[in-house]
Amino acid sequence: MAKNEFDIIKHYFAQQQLQRDDVALAIGDDCALVNVPVDFSVAVSTDSLVAGTHFLADADPASVAYKALASNLSDLAAMGATPAWVSLALTLPTIDETWLAPFCHSFFELANQYNIQLIGGDTTKGPLSITLTVQGLVPRGQALTRSGAQVGDDIYVTGDLGDSAAGLALILQQQHCDQHLAATLIERHFKASPRVNVGEALRGIASAALDISDGVVADVQHIAARSNVAIEIEVEQLPLSAELLAFCDGDRQQAQQLALSSGEEYELCFTASAANRDALKVALAHTNIKYTCIGKVKTGSGLSLLQSGKPLTWQLFGWDHFVVKDN
Amino acid sequence: MAKNEFDIIKHYFAQQQLQRDDVALAIGDDCALVNVPVDFSVAVSTDSLVAGTHFLADADPASVAYKALASNLSDLAAMGATPAWVSLALTLPTIDETWLAPFCHSFFELANQYNIQLIGGDTTKGPLSITLTVQGLVPRGQALTRSGAQVGDDIYVTGDLGDSAAGLALILQQQHCDQHLAATLIERHFKASPRVNVGEALRGIASAALDISDGVVADVQHIAARSNVAIEIEVEQLPLSAELLAFCDGDRQQAQQLALSSGEEYELCFTASAANRDALKVALAHTNIKYTCIGKVKTGSGLSLLQSGKPLTWQLFGWDHFVVKDN
Repeated sequence: MAKNEFDIIKHYFAQQQLQRDDVALAIGDDCALVNVPVDFSVAVSTDSLVAGTHFLADADPASVAYKALASNLSDLAAMGATPAWVSLALTLPTIDETWLAPFCHSFFELANQYNIQLIGGDTTKGPLSITLTVQGLVPRGQALTRSGAQVGDDIYVTGDLGDSAAGLALILQQQHCDQHLAATLIERHFKASPRVNVGEALRGIASAALDISDGVVADVQHIAARSNVAIEIEVEQLPLSAELLAFCDGDRQQAQQLALSSGEEYELCFTASAANRDALKVALAHTNIKYTCIGKVKTGSGLSLLQSGKPLTWQLFGWDHFVVKDN
Repeated sequence: MAKNEFDIIKHYFAQQQLQRDDVALAIGDDCALVNVPVDFSVAVSTDSLVAGTHFLADADPASVAYKALASNLSDLAAMGATPAWVSLALTLPTIDETWLAPFCHSFFELANQYNIQLIGGDTTKGPLSITLTVQGLVPRGQALTRSGAQVGDDIYVTGDLGDSAAGLALILQQQHCDQHLAATLIERHFKASPRVNVGEALRGIASAALDISDGVVADVQHIAARSNVAIEIEVEQLPLSAELLAFCDGDRQQAQQLALSSGEEYELCFTASAANRDALKVALAHTNIKYTCIGKVKTGSGLSLLQSGKPLTWQLFGWDHFVVKDN
């Protein structure tokens, strides 16, 4: 890109107000320099969003920025890490200020909310895509991994499940519903909140955790595989919002389908021993985020879905077609 | 991507042998976890290579991998940081094993050489591009930045300048020369070595440093701007290889032109006080990398080019068209 194009981009990225004390050097040198407190580990996650694959090229840039950062913050939340720094690689076909302005506004709004500082990156010319590398801090030995689930543990999820999938179906006009309800569900798809404070609160209490990015059915299997356990989910315990049930015209089974397969919710799925039930209640009380026990960790491997304690009599839509992505 | 496609990619990335002690958790969870030694800072750099912008879509995948990682390692070198960890975001139009196999082989070969471990990333479907975030370790307060040059300092470059530009001109068939010579210069373009050991050796000795990625003329201006000084370069002191002079048929001025504007060389440009000349000699002796004083730091601002102590009488090609990119 030509010099003036870089100047335009620099102007937008210079809008960042946040200056963390642990950033010794931010944008403008060959590298950024950051300092890590003694006895903390650094959690690092990278995710790309590519136009045409993860969002439409004409998607609202504010929503794209939100999604890119929120999905990465959700990975930090899943580790129990506190967000610290982010690097942004932005590939743009042209320098379009009507795209950059809302993108940066939305990006920095969310970054400020979670006290995460942009420390560097790269801006290149090419097909639209965004790659973020986020970093967070977690006390050594306290990170929540996928591999710690123990037989007998309870398995929980935060929030409600399925609203994001319902919102997406509405955006894609695959389904329709009352306008007010649609607006609520679409908002939940675009503005799902990463559960950073929950992840932090779960340190020392949860035995395993991950964020629900590909749907709870696909994601809990990562815990099962990496912890060498089986997981049993009781579909009647899945937390369903009143809006999701209204969207499904009260069809509980359809709502459960959506709850099981809905991705990009940024809810956390975690396991904890029965002995930690009280500790969990205390730790999560201040987060104001609800959590629900949806099953148990068992001996064996894989995932079983139960309905009122009996094997499911209905076929989970798309069961065989899930993209099981091991990050 | 479908499950089997992820399995294919996992297979290639599982080929990594390197396991650093400071990596508590690598690929396979929501985040990687790394530990930083007390009294060290973390240097972080992100660079993207996009097909069609930075390389041709049909470029040799081994060369693409080398360039992506080497250019990032060069940023660490410029800070005096020791490479530690890398995250790879790879966007591929299709899963092509004839592309992935040489890409990964080349990537891990270079990564192993510099003891840098792949700790995570993302693989997505879309137009071919590679974004790397590299991280390195540097003792706190000893990082080499662009802002420390002092009036009176000498200014140096490592290696020879201009070979990479000559190699590129041959690749693009803009110029031709003897086949053996062409092979040497093309190899230097594709296989320029990041000067990691030089960067490490310069800690505590150099006052400022950066890597030459856009040509020495463009890059030293970053030191001038961030250090609030002027820089004077004596073109007769530019280190020119015998091969570059042969490529230019002995036309020293053409060779100097190339030396001044050649990018992607991964040579370091640094400043150091005259009092440190002996320390520099000792520190760099073990690296087996030559270094050359090419000028002085002066009061004022901007860059002056001199020839035998007098202002240049010839026009530097493209002087007004340099892309001055402030990372």
